[in-house]
Amino acid sequence: MFQELFTPTVQYVIELVGIVVFAISGALLAVRKNFDLFGMAVLAEVTGLGGGLFRDLVIGATPAAFDDLGYFLMPLIATALVFVLHPEVERINRAVNIFDAAGLGLFCVTGTTKAHEYGLGLTSSAVLGLATAVGGGMMRDIMANEVPSILRWDRDMYAVPAMVGAAMTALLMRFGALDFVTSTLAAATAFTTRLLAIRYRWRAPRAWNRRSTRTEEKATAQ
Amino acid sequence: MFQELFTPTVQYVIELVGIVVFAISGALLAVRKNFDLFGMAVLAEVTGLGGGLFRDLVIGATPAAFDDLGYFLMPLIATALVFVLHPEVERINRAVNIFDAAGLGLFCVTGTTKAHEYGLGLTSSAVLGLATAVGGGMMRDIMANEVPSILRWDRDMYAVPAMVGAAMTALLMRFGALDFVTSTLAAATAFTTRLLAIRYRWRAPRAWNRRSTRTEEKATAQ
Amino acid sequence: MFQELFTPTVQYVIELVGIVVFAISGALLAVRKNFDLFGMAVLAEVTGLGGGLFRDLVIGATPAAFDDLGYFLMPLIATALVFVLHPEVERINRAVNIFDAAGLGLFCVTGTTKAHEYGLGLTSSAVLGLATAVGGGMMRDIMANEVPSILRWDRDMYAVPAMVGAAMTALLMRFGALDFVTSTLAAATAFTTRLLAIRYRWRAPRAWNRRSTRTEEKATAQ
Repeated sequence: MFQELFTPTVQYVIELVGIVVFAISGALLAVRKNFDLFGMAVLAEVTGLGGGLFRDLVIGATPAAFDDLGYFLMPLIATALVFVLHPEVERINRAVNIFDAAGLGLFCVTGTTKAHEYGLGLTSSAVLGLATAVGGGMMRDIMANEVPSILRWDRDMYAVPAMVGAAMTALLMRFGALDFVTSTLAAATAFTTRLLAIRYRWRAPRAWNRRSTRTEEKATAQ
Repeated sequence: MFQELFTPTVQYVIELVGIVVFAISGALLAVRKNFDLFGMAVLAEVTGLGGGLFRDLVIGATPAAFDDLGYFLMPLIATALVFVLHPEVERINRAVNIFDAAGLGLFCVTGTTKAHEYGLGLTSSAVLGLATAVGGGMMRDIMANEVPSILRWDRDMYAVPAMVGAAMTALLMRFGALDFVTSTLAAATAFTTRLLAIRYRWRAPRAWNRRSTRTEEKATAQ
Repeated sequence: MFQELFTPTVQYVIELVGIVVFAISGALLAVRKNFDLFGMAVLAEVTGLGGGLFRDLVIGATPAAFDDLGYFLMPLIATALVFVLHPEVERINRAVNIFDAAGLGLFCVTGTTKAHEYGLGLTSSAVLGLATAVGGGMMRDIMANEVPSILRWDRDMYAVPAMVGAAMTALLMRFGALDFVTSTLAAATAFTTRLLAIRYRWRAPRAWNRRSTRTEEKATAQ
């Protein structure tokens, strides 16, 4: 369908793994919100496939989520896993974080590439690559009636790693240097940046907020 | 536009009734949330037409909601009804539930059929049929800043009946047996399943939740 | 791309200004919700471009937001402005309101025109014009996990002015009288109506609510 950076099979398998891992985070949130089995499956599908669905609607492609049964089945597998094992899955939070970072790295690269193949400019492609990588998680939080965790100040940086990966991919395409090695490098950079953000609790800055500063001063004064 | 299972007029009339009933639930929620007249109309339109709009965006069809004035007018009629009569409408909750179940049964069948006509596979078509039937209600709750009632554990099963109807339709198409009688049967099955779910308070299972089990044990012990 | 009501450059510049102003309201909400810089940029992009994106997805056009870099950059400029100056921006609330009303007036006219160019009927075009004008603000509130302010009873009328402008545009197209002067007039009417609604605190009616009436009576009796 789009430029094969990796061998088709390898790429397909990586994508499926990425979808499963994203979907696990959706199913886990559903458990925490006390949703039923169907609610788990919906949040899993939305988290795993939502970003790619948005990308495909924008570029006018047949949504991969409805075109390939494999994509659709992955979130159901994630749901089954969480349904049976969820206290264990919560405990292996660290492993989930690592896979999630891998999904993030992969999707920001493939999202950018696919958008460019459909005729978008380089900047727009990178933006859509970013949206592919983070869109599913955002829809998950909106559906569960939570403030999207990616927008909150008090969470480790999640969007910036995806931005880095998408921008690298766009630059590589600009200079005709996108191939298996360099695209792996872009995905790996996003992946590593995300892991470092978790490890060192990197946060994005907030706007200079007069009122909250005042509040903090008060709190300190007392 | 798509395979005429029923005579065009009959199908069109049923669809309009389904939209009105879905829209009534949207307008009622708007009243409960203290929205103004415009808010009622928006929630009514979203609930009545949202599922079909999502389906049409995915399959790349001209959205029926913007193609046929009749579709657009139905939610406004629902809004006017609720605006004038809403305490009465709330009281006839039972009648609304029955019409809503009828809409659910109808839309899961027509949604699946239309998706298949536009080239989707059988499973994808059934999934999109399900999304057509339940999508509007979900968007209604998200817009009103509520947890989608379909995802909650403590509500009677709503998605499962639509799933049954959509799956039946897909199977009938698989074996070339979809005609007026069988598609009516599929819609009637979804309709009946939903009514039984309300009557006997059927609920979908939740994930086995160690912590909540412990909490319940504690509560019992005291 | 679509019927040039104004000279292309003038229209383009007005649109960019409208996007910036809409985007400022998004970035300001992000600050109030304590989002980080990325959260501000996302809310700004969604508010500035969301309505047009929805319109383009429905009519099947290449989304302008991903087609023209200028559109994409405007919300980032708004974000930078608010990031550095936000207490000042909050204070000049009045100026923001005026620009926002200008954006509202403009987008309900251009949204209606573009939808009609893509083959939608007059009523559908007006509805989509309305959605173009108010959609971004609605998505902003949904993403920030707030009840959309446009749906709430206790806010000054926002949708009605856009409706008036969209309806005027559709009527003008109906009678072949849409040109530079008349479309400016339609935009100006929407703009003025919105300013009057703010000035005189116009509100849309709510449904006759037996229970809340009773509550108010109680409150009065005490």
